[in-house]
Amino acid sequence: MFPKNTWYVAATPGEIDEKPLGRTICNERIVFYRGEENKVAAVEDFCPHRGAPLSLGYVCEGKLVCGYHGLEMGCDGKTVHMPGQRVRGFPAIKAYPVVERYGFIWVWPGDASKADEAKIPVLEWYDNPEWAYGGGLYHIACDYRLMIDNLMDLTHETYVHSTSIGQKEIDETPCKTTVNGDEVVTARYMSGILPPPFWKAALRSNNLPDDVTVDRWQICRFTPPSNVIIEVGVALEGNGGYDAPNDKKVYSKVIDFITPETETSIHYFWGMARKFNPKDKALTATIREGQGKIFGEDLEMLEKQQRNLLDYPDRALLMLNIDAGGVQSRKIIDRLVAEEKAQA
Amino acid sequence: MFPKNTWYVAATPGEIDEKPLGRTICNERIVFYRGEENKVAAVEDFCPHRGAPLSLGYVCEGKLVCGYHGLEMGCDGKTVHMPGQRVRGFPAIKAYPVVERYGFIWVWPGDASKADEAKIPVLEWYDNPEWAYGGGLYHIACDYRLMIDNLMDLTHETYVHSTSIGQKEIDETPCKTTVNGDEVVTARYMSGILPPPFWKAALRSNNLPDDVTVDRWQICRFTPPSNVIIEVGVALEGNGGYDAPNDKKVYSKVIDFITPETETSIHYFWGMARKFNPKDKALTATIREGQGKIFGEDLEMLEKQQRNLLDYPDRALLMLNIDAGGVQSRKIIDRLVAEEKAQA
Amino acid sequence: MFPKNTWYVAATPGEIDEKPLGRTICNERIVFYRGEENKVAAVEDFCPHRGAPLSLGYVCEGKLVCGYHGLEMGCDGKTVHMPGQRVRGFPAIKAYPVVERYGFIWVWPGDASKADEAKIPVLEWYDNPEWAYGGGLYHIACDYRLMIDNLMDLTHETYVHSTSIGQKEIDETPCKTTVNGDEVVTARYMSGILPPPFWKAALRSNNLPDDVTVDRWQICRFTPPSNVIIEVGVALEGNGGYDAPNDKKVYSKVIDFITPETETSIHYFWGMARKFNPKDKALTATIREGQGKIFGEDLEMLEKQQRNLLDYPDRALLMLNIDAGGVQSRKIIDRLVAEEKAQA
Repeated sequence: MFPKNTWYVAATPGEIDEKPLGRTICNERIVFYRGEENKVAAVEDFCPHRGAPLSLGYVCEGKLVCGYHGLEMGCDGKTVHMPGQRVRGFPAIKAYPVVERYGFIWVWPGDASKADEAKIPVLEWYDNPEWAYGGGLYHIACDYRLMIDNLMDLTHETYVHSTSIGQKEIDETPCKTTVNGDEVVTARYMSGILPPPFWKAALRSNNLPDDVTVDRWQICRFTPPSNVIIEVGVALEGNGGYDAPNDKKVYSKVIDFITPETETSIHYFWGMARKFNPKDKALTATIREGQGKIFGEDLEMLEKQQRNLLDYPDRALLMLNIDAGGVQSRKIIDRLVAEEKAQA
Repeated sequence: MFPKNTWYVAATPGEIDEKPLGRTICNERIVFYRGEENKVAAVEDFCPHRGAPLSLGYVCEGKLVCGYHGLEMGCDGKTVHMPGQRVRGFPAIKAYPVVERYGFIWVWPGDASKADEAKIPVLEWYDNPEWAYGGGLYHIACDYRLMIDNLMDLTHETYVHSTSIGQKEIDETPCKTTVNGDEVVTARYMSGILPPPFWKAALRSNNLPDDVTVDRWQICRFTPPSNVIIEVGVALEGNGGYDAPNDKKVYSKVIDFITPETETSIHYFWGMARKFNPKDKALTATIREGQGKIFGEDLEMLEKQQRNLLDYPDRALLMLNIDAGGVQSRKIIDRLVAEEKAQA
Repeated sequence: MFPKNTWYVAATPGEIDEKPLGRTICNERIVFYRGEENKVAAVEDFCPHRGAPLSLGYVCEGKLVCGYHGLEMGCDGKTVHMPGQRVRGFPAIKAYPVVERYGFIWVWPGDASKADEAKIPVLEWYDNPEWAYGGGLYHIACDYRLMIDNLMDLTHETYVHSTSIGQKEIDETPCKTTVNGDEVVTARYMSGILPPPFWKAALRSNNLPDDVTVDRWQICRFTPPSNVIIEVGVALEGNGGYDAPNDKKVYSKVIDFITPETETSIHYFWGMARKFNPKDKALTATIREGQGKIFGEDLEMLEKQQRNLLDYPDRALLMLNIDAGGVQSRKIIDRLVAEEKAQA
């Protein structure tokens, strides 16, 4: 249950630099590789000759060569050449619209005729001297919507991430969810609180004191199919909070691209784009490592939650105010999937 | 296929001292923890909010707190509190009758209204200066009735445990099975034999000679749902055998509480209560280690037997005289399960 | 989908010298052991008493003794003895025709009454001073027919084994497939080429120059049920190629006995019988190690091809000229299976 006529993050560029990458996206087994002029290409991971996975092959002069018997596949899914064979009548395999942009490989797993590169979200921090970015990839055995729920309800930080970004005040401060077309925003603003360890360290790294009260914000923004960008930060108290000048705050965006592998597993591309001290590469590495640990704390919870839900499929879950972000996001997803169904 | 309106050993107390324990008993996913006044409690391992496993949470002031979003669960399965929420209308989860007694946590996985603490078997060796106890827990992928069969027919010792407690005379000496109501007893008495290695060591540890002939007994006692207590021991020959005075024999009870996890897996709580040299803690540790090794020898056999039986479901097995203990025990189980069905 | 009234290689003798071996052949769970006079025997791996696997037992005076309760099984599948029991009425288990010959244990998994030892293929290199043999065993999760395809189309060497036996000329030289009754032969002859690394080493080990042009041949011969023997070799150019005198060539047979375990897994007995320098045991070891590495390169390809085919069962594969050997072999297999069905 996921939209397929949409762009998903499939990989990071480094994953296909050395050799083809086989990865399942929305139940489609796909091989990603660099074709002619190093341009990214994506076709079914299934050689039309004997069904071997093309991802075990290699790229030669821009063609993907099957590692079993040497069939050369073009980026349009049509066989280009095979030693000793006439390939004109070979059945084509599916080719996927694929774009390298903003430090990611984006794939459109559905109807290629509908693919529109303009619909790839703009990542304003990419290649922008005011920003720095670091991130990673986790494979998690859960429905992608459980991860959307997770990210659109940050009260879980108080419990799952109690030693880093969690604090009691998140739980105690109401959040507000608004829906604007296909966008869902859940926002929480906390005032006059002490920063938790992760933000203390961030303040210090921006040459700000870490032992004073701050204002803290969390603005979670869902856009289809399953992207959650969260504005997070703290400002020294009394400087306007979210609107404080740059030298009084630390401000970041948590980046979450959640790509369904199957109905019950995801490729989770997580990262942080920060707007303070952007040239400090050691800081980027430190934050990346810290975020990796923090986000790793969700894995066991999500996988065991998934198992519980599979075992008790008829049990109705609660939809509280804190769940509004996830609930509204799922409504949009449901509508998009229904529209795709109606079109097909 | 197991009775559910009955007490099963679910855990040992140390398993829930530090944090909640998630464990499946009779196909029920249950979390065990210490609630108010340190009293053991057991509820479904399923948070009514979003289905997270409560066993990943923690206990705070006697309440089980969900580790995902902080829902506080009472030991009756009703939500006590959740930050920022009115919890009165939250659906309850199942609470299980649970008792800590005799060094075990006992759970009643079926109809709570029928639970009767008086039906927990009396373990006379517990907290008794004349006895010492040591034991352990194995997880085995087999039907719990295969383990009952195993323990009610000790001729397998000759083959599976040939280097420790097995000896040819077990095989050669007929056993006798009697049924008294819900109790099945299979007894074997051997006279004038040499003790096998395990019993040689036991004799030495009780300051008795190990190079003389002995009388040996094995009295296996099944009681529902799946408890097998085996009186075992050897006495110097000519002193009355089983009835010999304490200074002429070594006498123990092998303790087996077999708790179904699923139809084809068990939590196997094994141990030995001994009535000789009870203050010698080093001896307790030595015996526990030895028994752990011996009982570990059954694992592969039982798991592969289970796989054979699953693959050949229609093949009739033999029911020989040596199998009478298991056969009679299964009859009692069948009757109890049928009674439960009729009541429901 | 495999013939069962036929001989398969089940094991090598060393595998049953120490203790019984449990192995599934054509979905039949079988235990192989050395019975009376050390003669190989094979019966179902299922004790008629309680379904324990007999392969966990041991052999005593030529009888297979069940390791659970001591039932003694005869090589005809009839129980011989059990302590304290009359065994005459015990149900028999299946006994399998089994023969030790040519350094292999051969089993007939189907109708025993049809077994004919004369149908075991003759391995002329066995115990023959002109030949040396070395080999090994791989377990691979693929349909046995995918391995037949693999071996009957050696163009894959160019890609899968590019650093050892592969070379572009294999791909560029047409092969010819002929069918003679139940035998399929796919042959390729290459002239005036440079030898690839594996054959360079072979030439050197036979005191021949490795830096000159050679003629190379590959003659793949399929016989039912799933045996592929491949004549391979190189001769110094201009000496008659395949027919060159022994001192101008290196000549071997690649041996492949492919035994189905289940529909989607095999026991793959591979080896090489060579007709040069046969007394050099170090060379035998070196070749065996090299071949093991080379043949290991096929594993991932075959297992992932199998997964692709299972996931896309309706997709028609191409049958090119290079695939003719596999296609013709499958036709023979299909006919044999149909004949078995008609008889049953």
